Amino acid sequence: MSPSADKEKLAPWRLKIHEVIFEADTKAGKTFDIILLIAILLSILIVMLESVKNFNDRYHQLFLVIEWGLTILFTIEYIIRIISIKKPWSYILSFYGVVDLLSILPTFLGLFLTGTHTLTVIRSLRLLRVFRILKLGKYLKEVQSLNIALRNSKRKIIVFLGTVLTLVIILGTLMYLIETEESGFTSIPRSIYWAIVTLTTVGYGDIYPSSELGQFIASIVMITGYAIIAVPTGIVTTEMARVDESKLSTQSCTSCAKEGHDKDAEFCKYCGENLHT
Amino acid sequence: MSPSADKEKLAPWRLKIHEVIFEADTKAGKTFDIILLIAILLSILIVMLESVKNFNDRYHQLFLVIEWGLTILFTIEYIIRIISIKKPWSYILSFYGVVDLLSILPTFLGLFLTGTHTLTVIRSLRLLRVFRILKLGKYLKEVQSLNIALRNSKRKIIVFLGTVLTLVIILGTLMYLIETEESGFTSIPRSIYWAIVTLTTVGYGDIYPSSELGQFIASIVMITGYAIIAVPTGIVTTEMARVDESKLSTQSCTSCAKEGHDKDAEFCKYCGENLHT
Amino acid sequence: MSPSADKEKLAPWRLKIHEVIFEADTKAGKTFDIILLIAILLSILIVMLESVKNFNDRYHQLFLVIEWGLTILFTIEYIIRIISIKKPWSYILSFYGVVDLLSILPTFLGLFLTGTHTLTVIRSLRLLRVFRILKLGKYLKEVQSLNIALRNSKRKIIVFLGTVLTLVIILGTLMYLIETEESGFTSIPRSIYWAIVTLTTVGYGDIYPSSELGQFIASIVMITGYAIIAVPTGIVTTEMARVDESKLSTQSCTSCAKEGHDKDAEFCKYCGENLHT
Amino acid sequence: MSPSADKEKLAPWRLKIHEVIFEADTKAGKTFDIILLIAILLSILIVMLESVKNFNDRYHQLFLVIEWGLTILFTIEYIIRIISIKKPWSYILSFYGVVDLLSILPTFLGLFLTGTHTLTVIRSLRLLRVFRILKLGKYLKEVQSLNIALRNSKRKIIVFLGTVLTLVIILGTLMYLIETEESGFTSIPRSIYWAIVTLTTVGYGDIYPSSELGQFIASIVMITGYAIIAVPTGIVTTEMARVDESKLSTQSCTSCAKEGHDKDAEFCKYCGENLHT
Repeated sequence: MSPSADKEKLAPWRLKIHEVIFEADTKAGKTFDIILLIAILLSILIVMLESVKNFNDRYHQLFLVIEWGLTILFTIEYIIRIISIKKPWSYILSFYGVVDLLSILPTFLGLFLTGTHTLTVIRSLRLLRVFRILKLGKYLKEVQSLNIALRNSKRKIIVFLGTVLTLVIILGTLMYLIETEESGFTSIPRSIYWAIVTLTTVGYGDIYPSSELGQFIASIVMITGYAIIAVPTGIVTTEMARVDESKLSTQSCTSCAKEGHDKDAEFCKYCGENLHT
Repeated sequence: MSPSADKEKLAPWRLKIHEVIFEADTKAGKTFDIILLIAILLSILIVMLESVKNFNDRYHQLFLVIEWGLTILFTIEYIIRIISIKKPWSYILSFYGVVDLLSILPTFLGLFLTGTHTLTVIRSLRLLRVFRILKLGKYLKEVQSLNIALRNSKRKIIVFLGTVLTLVIILGTLMYLIETEESGFTSIPRSIYWAIVTLTTVGYGDIYPSSELGQFIASIVMITGYAIIAVPTGIVTTEMARVDESKLSTQSCTSCAKEGHDKDAEFCKYCGENLHT
Repeated sequence: MSPSADKEKLAPWRLKIHEVIFEADTKAGKTFDIILLIAILLSILIVMLESVKNFNDRYHQLFLVIEWGLTILFTIEYIIRIISIKKPWSYILSFYGVVDLLSILPTFLGLFLTGTHTLTVIRSLRLLRVFRILKLGKYLKEVQSLNIALRNSKRKIIVFLGTVLTLVIILGTLMYLIETEESGFTSIPRSIYWAIVTLTTVGYGDIYPSSELGQFIASIVMITGYAIIAVPTGIVTTEMARVDESKLSTQSCTSCAKEGHDKDAEFCKYCGENLHT
Repeated sequence: MSPSADKEKLAPWRLKIHEVIFEADTKAGKTFDIILLIAILLSILIVMLESVKNFNDRYHQLFLVIEWGLTILFTIEYIIRIISIKKPWSYILSFYGVVDLLSILPTFLGLFLTGTHTLTVIRSLRLLRVFRILKLGKYLKEVQSLNIALRNSKRKIIVFLGTVLTLVIILGTLMYLIETEESGFTSIPRSIYWAIVTLTTVGYGDIYPSSELGQFIASIVMITGYAIIAVPTGIVTTEMARVDESKLSTQSCTSCAKEGHDKDAEFCKYCGENLHT
């Protein structure tokens, strides 16, 4: 995690490339980031438009040219990334490394494979590159603070989701017993699907109760769903407020190595060691 | 509530069983909990899949075997639970005791009863065991803290639900008077059902206003529903923040008299004095 | 607002009645409240069931009997309320006084008027009595604290609703210009109705965009609606938290008469006067 | 930003007009604001009703008269605004200046242009004047405090919307690969539109999954959408609470050194000392 140490052993030209590709501090690095972002969004747009029959019929050739152009660009980028880093395998095997590779493979595979549907599936992998957007240096601080709040509230949210799942299983089964097959409640899984559609207040209208008792229970499900949305909101808000006003220091005690000290703490609250020596 | 006192009078082998079944601290206890959870989820899955015509036609025999296997397993578990506890009736009559019994009875009853629908209804009782998931030791603290927040805000939420009910009754009646029967507003209860569907922003689309005045009032209902969801959210969030804040100890240091120590603090964070002497 | 002063001039038997009807502290008062509540809910249930064709055809005579019974009961209650109070007009002209009168008039009017629809409309007025539920002594404190929070956030919520209205007017008009009449966007008011249905995430499905551009704008409306629900929630939560932790005293300064002092204040923060003399 | 300096150089009659039009403090200014608001709302109502075929057929002549009346009124207002201000171009080129001009142009353009649809589009520009409502002096403070909270949370909300967009792109593509064209998933953009409709819990019901796997993934999308609405709510609430809290002064009393005084406090609430000496 000490990039300066890594860079010292890289040749100057690899150092320069590393700076441009992996760091967003310099002007060249920022320009590179923006060009990459535009290229990714363009490649995503092409995948999308290819799936619209009208567009594909008319602009198939154009799409093919852009696709190959972007693929070559991304391939060069991928090779440069490998060259400019000291430990290439840690990048290749990382989440973004795999995604980067998956986004260039499909076009090459398209040369050997046939069958429209298989190709579309493979081509769609390129969409995963959209995650790169989340790595934009400018908003890293916000992403981090949101992440901390969500990670802290993870366990409470799991408990909440568990309760919701228990609820929809029981309510879905209840509705399956009460409602007729004609209304769409043909099996328990389908009734649970209905319970989820209703509890989350989505309400497609593809399945809905027709009997009086069914509508009564549906009303209870809706009001429940309307009220318990307050729970995840409460969890996340409380956690965000805590991260926000957080006076927690990142310091760890030199004596007992425990963390989580307040910023104004002079002594370790667990062993009494002076924190500033 | 002093389990150690209870256990002292149990025979050693019953003590051992008690530890495995009722406590999640030991390794054997944890393994038991996980096996039980998998068995419960499997039994729920079987009930669900049995209701899907396709699956039931093809795998009916397999389902029957698994059902009997699980029922025997749960019966053994139920008997062991009764044996290993000092006051069996307090368990048998508890919520989980009744649920545990209800989850094994249906299969046995199935031997004597006939009629598919009746059987499905009874079999579905096994689904109630899903509540056991909520008892998973690992998340007990989160469940508890959520419970406290919800119990504290119970009275405010009742007031809120009362107001919502009053609103949907009046708005539903109003719509019944304004809208025609053709649009689906055939009776006051059905119009109230529509008001609930709309206010909770579920919006199936099975009943919707067709006249201009009806659409105008529907718009008011929607915006009201959209705005008042803030109320339960506000209630729960405020209560959660309060539960959260109460983690600070009220203790003041005997040396420097400063306050604001965390509940787990052993030493004063300002002067290093031991807080427990 | 000094009921004791009023009661001193009332005859003892009127005083007794006043206690039972208007106060919820005594045992007789509580019993009266509960009986009244049940009678109101029953009368509401009758109005509802009368509107269901099936029920009305079968139980019309029963409904008529209950209706007359309840009307006579409510008439007696209304007369007693007028007798037992010192200033009857202040009750008669109050919101609850008017509602109480409106809930007994319809049945008497039914004797002279004919025409089913007119009668249903008039009979529905009885539903307004449902508001009495909100006056239940037990939850008065919660109602009050919710009311304060909502009253404090009223102005911010008006600003929010104003913005939402502006948004739906502009977005509705935009969709009217973009979408065809076949999709249901036949006029600007109807398009605004669609915008409200979409922004509030109700989504009936009676009107929905069919063109690509329309679906694109609809997506923006949905995401906007999904995101800005955070605003009323934020407003109400903040206000509730403030009411909650409120250390505001109800005391007013004896020197400058200004209010809004903290509970721990010893001196007026506006003029320096000692608050405790 | 020092209007008094500007006004000193204006002739007295222009000063008077400036006071009435641009300031809401005086009685004349308030009256002008209310008349303007009514005129704007009337003009918006006319645009709306003109689009309803029934109304337009019957009242076309009346609408035309009101339209011309309002246009002349707004033209006079526009000219007066330009005259009464020292730097007219700063108003003309401001957002409200452009909107004011756009709201009078359409009627004049209608004299030269023909073609119903083009005219409706142009006429709709007048709707933009609805923004003037937001400038109502009375609620300026609330608008400001909401604006601050939203501006502060802007970056976090962008990160949230970016994540939501990434999610709907990936989920939409996934559903396009899984579901059949018959269910409405005819292209990736349309599938993404479905994902937005579902994630935001709008749920029109124009497109919905029909396969088991599709319904399973849809369930995940719904529960995700139901849970992550907590994020923007948490962001905005936290920010609002912070704007709210910042009303406390950082001043400490010169006599007793205690802190926590309100910003409007003149005297120390603990010892009565004047805070401003």
